Parts: sequence; structure tokens; C-alpha cells
Amino acid sequence: MTRSELIAQIRIKRSFLCVGLDTDLSKIPSHLLETEDPIFEFNKAIIDATKDYCVAYKPNVAFYECHGPKGWESLKKTIDYIPNNILTIADAKRGDIGNTSKYYANTFFDYLNADSVTIAPYMGEDSITPFFEHENKWVILLALTSNKGALDFQFIADGNNEELYKKVLRKSQEWGSDENLMYVVGATRAEGIGEVRKLVPNHFFLVPGVGAQGGSLEDVANYGWNNDCGLLVNSSRGIIYASNDINFAEAAANSAKALQTQMANILDSKNF
Amino acid sequence: MTRSELIAQIRIKRSFLCVGLDTDLSKIPSHLLETEDPIFEFNKAIIDATKDYCVAYKPNVAFYECHGPKGWESLKKTIDYIPNNILTIADAKRGDIGNTSKYYANTFFDYLNADSVTIAPYMGEDSITPFFEHENKWVILLALTSNKGALDFQFIADGNNEELYKKVLRKSQEWGSDENLMYVVGATRAEGIGEVRKLVPNHFFLVPGVGAQGGSLEDVANYGWNNDCGLLVNSSRGIIYASNDINFAEAAANSAKALQTQMANILDSKNF
Repeated sequence: MTRSELIAQIRIKRSFLCVGLDTDLSKIPSHLLETEDPIFEFNKAIIDATKDYCVAYKPNVAFYECHGPKGWESLKKTIDYIPNNILTIADAKRGDIGNTSKYYANTFFDYLNADSVTIAPYMGEDSITPFFEHENKWVILLALTSNKGALDFQFIADGNNEELYKKVLRKSQEWGSDENLMYVVGATRAEGIGEVRKLVPNHFFLVPGVGAQGGSLEDVANYGWNNDCGLLVNSSRGIIYASNDINFAEAAANSAKALQTQMANILDSKNF
Repeated sequence: MTRSELIAQIRIKRSFLCVGLDTDLSKIPSHLLETEDPIFEFNKAIIDATKDYCVAYKPNVAFYECHGPKGWESLKKTIDYIPNNILTIADAKRGDIGNTSKYYANTFFDYLNADSVTIAPYMGEDSITPFFEHENKWVILLALTSNKGALDFQFIADGNNEELYKKVLRKSQEWGSDENLMYVVGATRAEGIGEVRKLVPNHFFLVPGVGAQGGSLEDVANYGWNNDCGLLVNSSRGIIYASNDINFAEAAANSAKALQTQMANILDSKNF
């Protein structure tokens, strides 16, 4: 999916919602456990119920690979099932030396055919650039994450008072463009989103942490907005586990719709 | 595998060699491609031929997962096949928020039953500590990597002149001990290994980059040695692709034995 196609979908659907598919066998409705592939059956129902309210789905790869080959099958079936006009994000946090990152890029872009993959920046340029060799695919690079551990290393400032996350933003813009590179910027650090937006005016941000982790949608929009919206705001547990009874899909649809309505108001207020 | 068991194996085998299983269908002998699981058949032959010369095997997960569920089956069969007295390292470079890292820990320690997994530190404490909840398992944390991109972020120094990789070493010692935490320290930066050893006197290092990437075994031993050896030196391509004809396993054995002989000389010279 290209940048302009993504922006068009945001305009059409009046939404910049990403639904996180952190699908956990211990949390899904028990009646699904009797099916052949409960993870896929759950995802299929969630996708059917929420696809009109979101512009992206983000399966969290950890929740699939902990089931071994069967989990990878559920992941592939899920990505195949997502409609083509919705961005697919393999949330995998990969990154290794160039020779190895090439194989990770093949995994997510060729084998799984996801539109994008999340990447950790610690190993630098050659760990990231192999992902840019795939056309119309995206790297979503960790910059400022939403978790408590973000404080351990991401705010280390060098002699010029430039924090690590800012250096990641600055250097990585030499490797990719706003057509193939987005950033993870956590909603739990709203003022941080503003700092990032100053350094990165054009790129899209994938913003986790709204809902269960405590971030506010209004703050995210205030600090992170750009002329093309520039935001994908993720919600996982708040949508997919809105209920765990037989009506789980309807409850997920209601939760997704409530967020989409808030987003439509924000888009209206920005005359977008 | 515990620390004392690992040290005992180094003494018995006169080796601190780790064989990297970066198994690539385009590089293995063509006669194996007709078998049902060429990757496993190749690894099996390599393990049979080299197991007396090494104390660890390190499958590089990228090379397996690019084949989807079938690749994960090959990976599991490979780890199951490795004798119990040899450390298994899932080279996966994972790391995510605590709630997700828990699932990655389940993947590598429960599902795959590997002894250890490599982890990227960018997301800090809660991305790493879930891996310590599994008994007799190891985190191998990226500190100073062997690739060119290591220069992009790992050497950023804060106001106290402490580089990022040193801060990773210092902080992470608050989270794990030398009984469950090792570090990746690349052989291509021998003087860096000495710097790391000063900060981390007791922990084991996993040292990639000897051979194809240009690092020297003598330098690694000079700079990285501690009283318990403290080193696992990895070689991948130089061993497993020593030949790609019908005698590939014998050629791998010869390459592994040559490194083991050098290591035995080093252990002798240290009166270990």
C-alpha cells in the first residue's frame, strides 16, 4: 500500500484507527476453542466486524509464534483475510545484521505479504535498509515506545543534548523516506509526540498506548497531527476483548466504532 | 543449562566454539534438496559431524521463519536433535513491551525449549525481564554488535561520557545475573571487547564476527577472557559452508576441529 492510498482510506473511512490483533487463546470466547483454528476464527470475526472502522490491522507476531508452526499458519491466514484496502502491520520488532535482516524482510514481505513490519533500531543502518528493498512496503521503526522501559535508554542525551530517540529519527531519515518509513511513537508520552513531530514533519506515526496503556486520543491528535493526518492510532485489548461472550464481535465493532467516531470528529475539526 | 554445566563442557571439550546454523537452501548441497526437510537434514549432518568440537549451537531464526510453518518445524527438530550437553541459542533478536515479551519467552523457552535467546535492548527493562522468569534459561543481550551499523547508535555517549552500549551493560546487570544473562559482543571490535570485560568481569560473552566478518580469535581471547573462560565464539559460514559437495559434513568437521584446536591451545596457555 502506498502513502497516497493510505491517506485516501483515512479520508474515505473518516478514521485513522489501527486494530491490534494480540490474539490470546486464554482470552478469546471459549466456544471458539472447539474450532480447528481458534485464533483465525476469532480474527476473522473481529475483522468482519471492525473493517469499516479502521484503516490498519496489526497482528502482534509474539502471540502467533508462541504456538509454533500452527501459529504461523493462523498469522498467514489472518493477513490473507484482511481486505486489500487496509494496511497490514506485522508487529515483529525484528532487526539483525544486513545479511540476516534480508531474510526477515523476505519473511514478512514475501512469505506473509504484510504491507509493513516494525523494526528495532539498535543495530543501525544495515539492520534496517534491507527492508527498503521491497517495493510498496513499509518499515515502522521504533523511536519512542509506550512502555516504562522506554525511559532506560531512549532518552539518553549526547553532548549536544540530542536524545537517542531523536538520533534514531534523524539518522533513519537518511535511509528511508515518508513513502516507506513510519515511526512507532507511544501515546503514553504525548509531549514526546510533539517533539517527534518537530523533527519528522511528514512521516506517519504508529501510535500504540491509547486505551489499556493510558494514552489519550485527543493528546495524540493535538501533538502528532500533520497535513496528511500522519497518524495511525492503535487499540488492541480495548477492541478485541471488549467482551468475551458469544457477542464478542459485536462488542468489538461497538468499541471500534466509538473510537472511529472520535476520530471523525478530530478529522472534521482539522478540515481534513 | 546452568553456568557451571557450561564451564564444565568447555573444560571437557577444550573448546568454547559455538556453531551458527544459518541454514540457507540456496547454499546447502543440492542432493539434500530432494529430501523431505532439507534444512533439518543438513543441520543433522552438521551436528553429527561437529558436536565433539563445540559447546553451543546457534540457529539464526531468520533463516527458518522465512519458510513459514515448515521453517519453524525444521527449527524445532534441529533444537530437539542437539545433544543436551550443548547449549542451544535461538538467535532471534526479540524484545517488546512486557506483556508481549512474555509470549516471546514462551516461544523460545517453552515451545522450542532452547536454552537461550538473543534480545535487543532498545525498549528497556520490561522488554527483557520476562525472559528471566524461566529457570535455567538465558538472555543473551545485544551490547556491542559486529556489524557496521553498530556505529550508528551504540557509541552515542551521554554527558558523563558513557556510551549507549556501556549503559546497556550497566543497567542490565540490575535485571539479571551471570547465571542467566550473557552479552553479544562482536569480534570485529576487539578493543571494545576489552572495554566490555572491564564493566562485566563475570558474565559470558557470545562473540560473533570471527571468520567471514573479519574478527580474530586471538584478539577475542586476549581482550575477553575471564577466570571461567567467559567466551562463546561463534562461527557460522566458515564451518557449515566449508564445502557444498557431498562431503560437506566432513569439511565442516575439519573447519570446526581447526577452530577447536586453536581454542584448546588458548585454554592450555591460560592453564584452564
